[in-house]
Amino acid sequence: MFSKIRELLIGKTLKTEELEGEKLNIFWGLPILSSDAISSVAYAGEEILYVLIGVIGLMAYRYMFYAAVAVILLLILLVLSYRQTIDAYPNGGGSYIVAQDNLGIKPGLIAGASLTVDYILTVAVSICAGTAAITSAVPSLLNHKVAIALVMLIILTIGNLRGTKESSKIFGVPTYLFIVSCIVLIITGVIRHYVFGYLPAQMYSIPKQIGDITLFLFLRAFASGCTALSGVEAVSNGIPNFKEPSQKNAKAVLVLLACLVLFIFGGLSFLATIYHPVPSANVTVFAQIAQQVFGKGIMFYIIQVTTAFVLVMAANTAYAGLPLLLSLMAQDGYVPRQFSQRGKRLSFSNGIIVLAVAAGILIIVFKGDTHLLLPLYAVGVFLSFTLSQVGMFLKWTRSKEEGWKHKAVINGLGAIVTFITVILIGITKFVHGAWLVFIIIPVLVYSMGKIKNHYNKVVKQIKLSNDERPNIGIKTNNDQHVIILLGTLNKTFLKSLNCARCLSNNVVAFHVSTDPAATEKLKVKWKEYNPGIPLIIEHSAYRDIIEPLMNFIESEDRASKHGETVTVVISQFVITKWWHNLLHNQTGYFVKSMLYKNRNVAVLTVPYIIKE
Amino acid sequence: MFSKIRELLIGKTLKTEELEGEKLNIFWGLPILSSDAISSVAYAGEEILYVLIGVIGLMAYRYMFYAAVAVILLLILLVLSYRQTIDAYPNGGGSYIVAQDNLGIKPGLIAGASLTVDYILTVAVSICAGTAAITSAVPSLLNHKVAIALVMLIILTIGNLRGTKESSKIFGVPTYLFIVSCIVLIITGVIRHYVFGYLPAQMYSIPKQIGDITLFLFLRAFASGCTALSGVEAVSNGIPNFKEPSQKNAKAVLVLLACLVLFIFGGLSFLATIYHPVPSANVTVFAQIAQQVFGKGIMFYIIQVTTAFVLVMAANTAYAGLPLLLSLMAQDGYVPRQFSQRGKRLSFSNGIIVLAVAAGILIIVFKGDTHLLLPLYAVGVFLSFTLSQVGMFLKWTRSKEEGWKHKAVINGLGAIVTFITVILIGITKFVHGAWLVFIIIPVLVYSMGKIKNHYNKVVKQIKLSNDERPNIGIKTNNDQHVIILLGTLNKTFLKSLNCARCLSNNVVAFHVSTDPAATEKLKVKWKEYNPGIPLIIEHSAYRDIIEPLMNFIESEDRASKHGETVTVVISQFVITKWWHNLLHNQTGYFVKSMLYKNRNVAVLTVPYIIKE
Repeated sequence: MFSKIRELLIGKTLKTEELEGEKLNIFWGLPILSSDAISSVAYAGEEILYVLIGVIGLMAYRYMFYAAVAVILLLILLVLSYRQTIDAYPNGGGSYIVAQDNLGIKPGLIAGASLTVDYILTVAVSICAGTAAITSAVPSLLNHKVAIALVMLIILTIGNLRGTKESSKIFGVPTYLFIVSCIVLIITGVIRHYVFGYLPAQMYSIPKQIGDITLFLFLRAFASGCTALSGVEAVSNGIPNFKEPSQKNAKAVLVLLACLVLFIFGGLSFLATIYHPVPSANVTVFAQIAQQVFGKGIMFYIIQVTTAFVLVMAANTAYAGLPLLLSLMAQDGYVPRQFSQRGKRLSFSNGIIVLAVAAGILIIVFKGDTHLLLPLYAVGVFLSFTLSQVGMFLKWTRSKEEGWKHKAVINGLGAIVTFITVILIGITKFVHGAWLVFIIIPVLVYSMGKIKNHYNKVVKQIKLSNDERPNIGIKTNNDQHVIILLGTLNKTFLKSLNCARCLSNNVVAFHVSTDPAATEKLKVKWKEYNPGIPLIIEHSAYRDIIEPLMNFIESEDRASKHGETVTVVISQFVITKWWHNLLHNQTGYFVKSMLYKNRNVAVLTVPYIIKE
Repeated sequence: MFSKIRELLIGKTLKTEELEGEKLNIFWGLPILSSDAISSVAYAGEEILYVLIGVIGLMAYRYMFYAAVAVILLLILLVLSYRQTIDAYPNGGGSYIVAQDNLGIKPGLIAGASLTVDYILTVAVSICAGTAAITSAVPSLLNHKVAIALVMLIILTIGNLRGTKESSKIFGVPTYLFIVSCIVLIITGVIRHYVFGYLPAQMYSIPKQIGDITLFLFLRAFASGCTALSGVEAVSNGIPNFKEPSQKNAKAVLVLLACLVLFIFGGLSFLATIYHPVPSANVTVFAQIAQQVFGKGIMFYIIQVTTAFVLVMAANTAYAGLPLLLSLMAQDGYVPRQFSQRGKRLSFSNGIIVLAVAAGILIIVFKGDTHLLLPLYAVGVFLSFTLSQVGMFLKWTRSKEEGWKHKAVINGLGAIVTFITVILIGITKFVHGAWLVFIIIPVLVYSMGKIKNHYNKVVKQIKLSNDERPNIGIKTNNDQHVIILLGTLNKTFLKSLNCARCLSNNVVAFHVSTDPAATEKLKVKWKEYNPGIPLIIEHSAYRDIIEPLMNFIESEDRASKHGETVTVVISQFVITKWWHNLLHNQTGYFVKSMLYKNRNVAVLTVPYIIKE
């Protein structure tokens, strides 16, 4: 039943060989990997304005535009830097790889942990912002925003479990629609104002100026705007998702992305200086601009719908990025190995599910509020940018390959600027929530170290040298100790007995008495049936089966006499309907898990099928 | 870790022999088994008033008093009837037993299902009413009523998992305090009014009369008041909880209970005719009476606190009753057998947990609102009363023992009255929620039949006749088929191999290739190590291990050639820290559960302990 539902939702299992067909060309790669950066125009401008307007009032629009320009300059620098990274790391040049490669394991783990945190936040923030776009258009939905966000999350998760390529086709179109609507919005907004002199009344009144612009205030505004830049990492981390030539395609997508953000983010910030939107809890700044430019007509609703879609697609960027990152880290043994396995549809399904659950928790805890989530955002991504850039800088200075000086200058400059930015973000947003990230990242790095440690320990302990030879084989008298755990005398016992006697001549039945009446009945029946093996009965005052059994194994010194493994036989009902399992004691299951903790006890499970 | 937390919460494991010490005498039995009936005065009066006051306005108080008198008369009849049941059924005369004994299996199951539903509702209703008592005193808590109710539920559950006797001592005192406060309230209320002519202004205005009293309206009011009577069943069902002489003690508790309800319910209804409380969403009717009589001083708060406590104790009645009922039904095979097992502290812990979860769901779904829950209530208990009374009536007419006529008259009268009541409740409350109960009870009865069916099928299939003899024993060539499932060549394989070779001379290793590179490495290592058994390798396109393995077993016709069991050896890591399990694929676990479905495959699990 479960497998049928799964097949309906995520499609038929794919062969490993079908992997190549799931990759992206430039046309589909752009929407799926750049929607994060492009869509952030829907909230990044609002965040800048939110910081400024409460203090400097009307002046906020001018400084908002300056901050946006600063963010765009930073983006251009990042694109230049990352083009070099893509060249140098054809298998995916995520910060994790670059930092580990050039700076060592610890910096690599810090980059990996930072990115993990940021991918999860990308999903939570983008979905919440998408929900805000919907509730801006339909205010009556304001009370259901958490539910709307969770539904979006579930749809996205299912789409991604179906596999990368299909999700890009489903999800690529809205990104293009959003780009086109934004361009139309900007052009219309500029023409209506400058050509036709159109200027509608403001929707909300601008707060009074209560202070002057300070450097700290401007830097806070700039730091808030930096949330727009996490998408860059996604492209360079996602090279293996591209069709061949994957590096060239990735670089092309990166440049296209930069051009689009330049035009749209710049254009919208400019429109803000004309139309004066004011951050409000009910209608987003972006929606206010659209409403001012178009009026509350069809174009307004198109803008809101495409915004919602593209923000959900931005979350999709993280669905492409995080599972891939986790699979790389899993191969290195820093996160559970299961992250490196492809699911039924060849996507890294474990990573997708973990991402969905973590983002879902964030949405619920932060009540679907973008404002509360954003201060946590961007610390991680700029930390990883910095590590990556420093790594690239060192790479060039070490390799001294052709043209290294030029490349080192670009990455060095990138390193300095992103480092300054991470400090800025950390300081200006610390009390607003960024402190949480400064706790989570070290905890993740520590856990990754512990995990690697465990895997190392296991590998060391189970490593087999050629000198350790197997035993010669079966002994002539075949007296391997076999104990049948006996509840009541029935056919399951008979089957267990037959199994055991095929394997050994030294079989005993062991019964733990928790109910004297039942034990008496067993004794009578045993005498009657007389199976020809000894029956040992132990009383248990605490209704516990494990302890008497373990005592029996140890007291007889069965385990150690020959240094052999004692085998305990447990019969298990096999039932066709899953709910029938609720009707039977899972004693066998508990006994087994306890016995496994004893090195010298092997458990032979003999299934007995109950027919319907 | 988990076992330590459990020990801290519910105490040390008790021996089966310690069971006798956990029973109740009259003094503790009264509060623990009658708090349900006594506490219902806190909401039953309000429910009656709620039905009447919207229609007949001020006249409601007079008819409320009449309805209360009718409920009390019904209670007296029930007590007389149930005293006879206690005499006839010393081991617990719950309706389930009585109905099954005298009317047959189906009526027994209907009684059992009805009681199950009602016990769960008792917990949900009482806890919600207890929360209402608290929020009546501290209105600022109104928004947190679901959280408050759930905390109470958790505390109760833990208390009950610790065992019956301890819970009675912890919980008995508040019931007595409530009884005393109610008596003080009634006496004070009457004296202040009649002796000192005290009559404060009403707290809320009484709705205008919009209709006349009709028979249907009065019957609806009476039906709402009948929620007070579920406690009777709890006493007669709980006879085994009493100290010897348990029947005498139970009968004494029943009579004391009737006297207390008579005085308190009657007294409070009388006070209502003086002080004119009006049902409101914020302050309970009972709280209004207390506030009118005492003013909002210390006595008012004492009343509210003891009311909250006694209502939680009423929920406790169900904690004593339902697990016992489920254990009886489990012994008969109508509900999962696990309900008949005593937990670490000798309480029927599975029943307690199921009760807590079901009540918790009800509290959450109905948002902690007593009003919404009450229409579901009482249908079940009166259905079971009726079945029980009819059963008792038939018992006397069949046995014709000394004095049977007198006894038959009492039970016959009880049967008629409770039958009329169940019809009344069903009709008057159907649209308000009782329809749900009329769906749930048949579903439960149907499920119980299916469960019994399954158990019967299992018993029949595994019954061992003395003619079915075990096989003679080990064959001389000892060529039992043993297949070792091989992932990588390491020490876990060596241990598995040694185990297997102790049991058979016919051992092969089987490897499913999901990653060609890993398989190549394995081949090289295998050649080098040369363990002396054949290695079979199968490729799996769909990254699935089960199918190739099953095909291998079947294609070789290994299973059927000798009609023997094939043994598959799977090694399993045993890990000291639970979270380390997250770091390893649970492939072995999935393979095992699939293999069990094949009748002729036994699984030998060889544990390998990873040291820390």
